Amino acid sequence: MNILDWNALESDGQARALTRPVQAVAAQTRESVAGLIAQVRADGDVALRAISARFDGVVPESFEVSEAEFAAAELAVPAELRIAMQQALDRIDVYHRAGMAQPYSVETAPGVVCEKMIRPIGRVGLYVPAGSAPLPSTALMLGVPARLAGCSEVVLCTPPRKDGTADPAVLVAARLTGVHRVFKLGGAQAIAAMAYGTATVPSCDKLFGPGNSFVTEAKQQVAQDGAAAIDMPAGPSEVLVIADAGANPAFVAADLLSQAEHGPDSQVLLLSDDAGLIAAVQDEVEKQVALLAREDIARKALDTSLLIKVESIEQAFVISNRYAPEHLILALREPRDWLPQVEAAGSVFLGDYTPEALGDYCSGTNHVLPTAGAARAYSGVSVASFQNQISVQAATREGIANIGPCALTLARAEGLGAHANAVALRLGVAP
Amino acid sequence: MNILDWNALESDGQARALTRPVQAVAAQTRESVAGLIAQVRADGDVALRAISARFDGVVPESFEVSEAEFAAAELAVPAELRIAMQQALDRIDVYHRAGMAQPYSVETAPGVVCEKMIRPIGRVGLYVPAGSAPLPSTALMLGVPARLAGCSEVVLCTPPRKDGTADPAVLVAARLTGVHRVFKLGGAQAIAAMAYGTATVPSCDKLFGPGNSFVTEAKQQVAQDGAAAIDMPAGPSEVLVIADAGANPAFVAADLLSQAEHGPDSQVLLLSDDAGLIAAVQDEVEKQVALLAREDIARKALDTSLLIKVESIEQAFVISNRYAPEHLILALREPRDWLPQVEAAGSVFLGDYTPEALGDYCSGTNHVLPTAGAARAYSGVSVASFQNQISVQAATREGIANIGPCALTLARAEGLGAHANAVALRLGVAP
Repeated sequence: MNILDWNALESDGQARALTRPVQAVAAQTRESVAGLIAQVRADGDVALRAISARFDGVVPESFEVSEAEFAAAELAVPAELRIAMQQALDRIDVYHRAGMAQPYSVETAPGVVCEKMIRPIGRVGLYVPAGSAPLPSTALMLGVPARLAGCSEVVLCTPPRKDGTADPAVLVAARLTGVHRVFKLGGAQAIAAMAYGTATVPSCDKLFGPGNSFVTEAKQQVAQDGAAAIDMPAGPSEVLVIADAGANPAFVAADLLSQAEHGPDSQVLLLSDDAGLIAAVQDEVEKQVALLAREDIARKALDTSLLIKVESIEQAFVISNRYAPEHLILALREPRDWLPQVEAAGSVFLGDYTPEALGDYCSGTNHVLPTAGAARAYSGVSVASFQNQISVQAATREGIANIGPCALTLARAEGLGAHANAVALRLGVAP
Repeated sequence: MNILDWNALESDGQARALTRPVQAVAAQTRESVAGLIAQVRADGDVALRAISARFDGVVPESFEVSEAEFAAAELAVPAELRIAMQQALDRIDVYHRAGMAQPYSVETAPGVVCEKMIRPIGRVGLYVPAGSAPLPSTALMLGVPARLAGCSEVVLCTPPRKDGTADPAVLVAARLTGVHRVFKLGGAQAIAAMAYGTATVPSCDKLFGPGNSFVTEAKQQVAQDGAAAIDMPAGPSEVLVIADAGANPAFVAADLLSQAEHGPDSQVLLLSDDAGLIAAVQDEVEKQVALLAREDIARKALDTSLLIKVESIEQAFVISNRYAPEHLILALREPRDWLPQVEAAGSVFLGDYTPEALGDYCSGTNHVLPTAGAARAYSGVSVASFQNQISVQAATREGIANIGPCALTLARAEGLGAHANAVALRLGVAP
C-alpha cells in the first residue's frame, strides 16, 4: 500500500489519489455485450444454450431450477449455514420493513385531495453472482426487500456450476426469501434474458444485483434501451476508513483486507491524522495478508490502494465526501458525533466493533450499494427500489372552483389553450 | 382519432394498439448529441457559445442570468401570474413535504443499531424547456422538491429567447423556489455543461427535467457515462382516460386535447365500455380541436391516438396497467373504488372534476412523470429524487458477540477469509 501526505499534494495529485482504478468500460466489452444481447433477443433459448456452453462450459438440462434441485439443495446445506441465513434474513427484514414508505393523503386546498399510493413493481429480476465464490448473502439482500414490496413475480438468475447445478446455498437463500423462480444463467446472457424474455425466462420490469463487468455493462445497455430499469450503475467494491490515533491497527487492517479480497480491482483507502496509526496499519496489513486464502487477489487490490495522512479528522470527512465511498468505516473514538459530517456514502460503520463484514451479511442493512462515486446521487437497495410511487389527485366541484383559476392563469401564460379549456369547461367560464 | 374494438383484435393487434408512436432514438440524433457533448467537454464555454449560436441563433452576453435580469423579470411578470405561481408553489410544497422520507433507527439485535440517514444530493441541475412555450410550471415542479431536500446548490438551465434573454416567468418561478443560479442554455449543450461543468457552469451530481429528443438523449448519455445521475428516461407526454357511460363527453374530449396539444408525438388513449360515449367524445374532439390555437399540433397527435371499446371497466384497467400511462384519468362514477386496480401509472386523476391540467399546474402533485411505459418501474419526481439515503450501523462489543458468529458462518460459506478474519479478531476467536 502506498502512503500519501494529502497536504503535500497539489490539487491534481489529490484528484489522482481519489480516482478509481477502474477505467471506462473497454469498447471491446461493450461490443461483446451488445452482440450477446442481440443474440438472445433474436434466438431466445437457443442463444442462451450456445452462450452458456461457451462461457460456463456447461448447458444445464433445464435452465430453470426444478423442485428436485431445491430439495437436494436443502439436504446439501449444513444446518449451521441454514440457521445463519435465516438469522441474517430476519435482521434484514426488520431493518428494511422499518423503512418502508407509507401511502399518504393531504388536502392541498378545500375540495382537493392529493395522495401517494405505493405499488410493487410487477416482475423483478435478481442477479446473484457466483464467480470466484457464490454469494447466498446477495440472494438475501435482494430477495427480502422484493418480498416486502410484494412483487408478484421475483425471478433470480445465478450462473451454473461446472456440473450444471446451482450453488445449494444460493438456492436455499432464494427459497427462504420467497423468490418464485430461479434460473441457472449467468453473465450478460442472464441480463438479456430477464430484460427481453425468452420462451423459458420471463421478461422483468427491473433488474437488480451486482456482477462482473459483463453483467454491469449488460444492465446498462438494457436500461438504456428502455427494456428494463436497473437498480444502479455498479463497479468494483470499495471501502474508505477514517481512523484516529485511538483506532486498533489490527482491526483496521482486517477491514481493509476484507475489502481487498473481493477482487483485484477493489479499492481500499485509509485516512488518518495519525502517522503512527498509518504505519501500524501498514505493518498489520502485511502480517494479515500473508495468511489469507485469497492473498493474491488482495495483494493486487492493495497495489492501487492508499494510506493517506490528513491534517485533521475534519479534513478526512471533506475528502471522503468528495470520494463518496460505497462503505465508510469510522474507526473513531466518538463516531456518532461525526455522523453529521457524512454527506455521501453508501453505508456507514461506526466504531471499532462494527466491521464492514457485519453489514455485508447480517446487521440488517443492505449490501447492494452505490460504487464508483455513485453514492453522490444514488442510494443502496431498499424496499422502495422494488416499488412504484403513484400520485393521485381528486378535486370536487368546490375543489376545482378553488384551484381552477390558478391553473387557468398558468395555462394561458404557457400558451396551452386546450389545458385552459379543460379547466374552463368545468368552471363554466371562457378559456 | 381511430376507434378500435379491443376484443375484436388478435393479440398482435392489441400489442400494436399499445405501442407508443415514438420510435427508438435515431442513430443520427445519438451521434449529434455525442458530438455536442464531446465538444462541450473539450472546449467548455467556447463550445457553449458556438453551439448556442448555431441552434438558438443567439449567444447571450453572459450565460448566467444576472441580478438585473431577475429584477427586470419581476417587473415584466403580471401580478396575476406571479400570484398563481405562488399559489401553485404553496400546494406543491404541502404535498411534497408531507411525503418526505424520515430518518429512522432500529435495533436489529441487542447491541446492534441500524439506521437510515437522509442527506440532500449536493449539486443538482434542473432543465426547463422553452420550445414552443416556456414552462415556468416545470421550474416550480423541480425547484420545490430541490429546496425541500435541502440541496446546497440548485442550478437551472433554460434556453435563451431570440433576444438573448430568458423567459421572465421562468426566472420568477426559479427565484420563488430558491434556485441558486440560472443559465440561459438549452438543448444537449445545457445537459453537457451541467454534467461535466465548464468555467461558468458548475458540474452537477444529478440532472432533472423534461426536454426534446436532444435533451433526453443527452441525459441518457451523461448518465451512461457516469458523469451525472438523471431523474428518469423521458419521452413524449401521454394520457390514458378510462370513462364509463356516465362520463361527460365534452370534459373527456377536453382532457384528451390538453394532452394532444403538447406535441405531435403526444399519445392519447380513451378506453370505455360504452360505444355511445366513445362516439360522443369523438364528436366533441372534432368540435373542440377546431377552436384551439395549437390545432395543428393537436391534430397530428390525434392521428396516432385511439378510442378503444372494451368489454368492461375491469378490462380497461388490465389494458391500462399493461400500457402504464404517464397520466391516468378515471372518468368513472365511483373512481376511488377503482384505485386498487391501478398497478402502474405516473399520476392518477379521479372523477369528472379533476382534469389533468390541475396536476400539470397546481393540485400539488409533481408533473415530471415517467413516460413511454417507464411507469412500470419508475416513479415521478419527489423530494426523495433529490436525496441520498445512507444506511448506518453500530455494534457494541455485546452486539458483535450476538451477530458476529452469524457473519462468520456466512463468510466461511462464501470463502471470504478476510471477512471472517475481521469478525473473528473482534470476537477473539479463530477465523
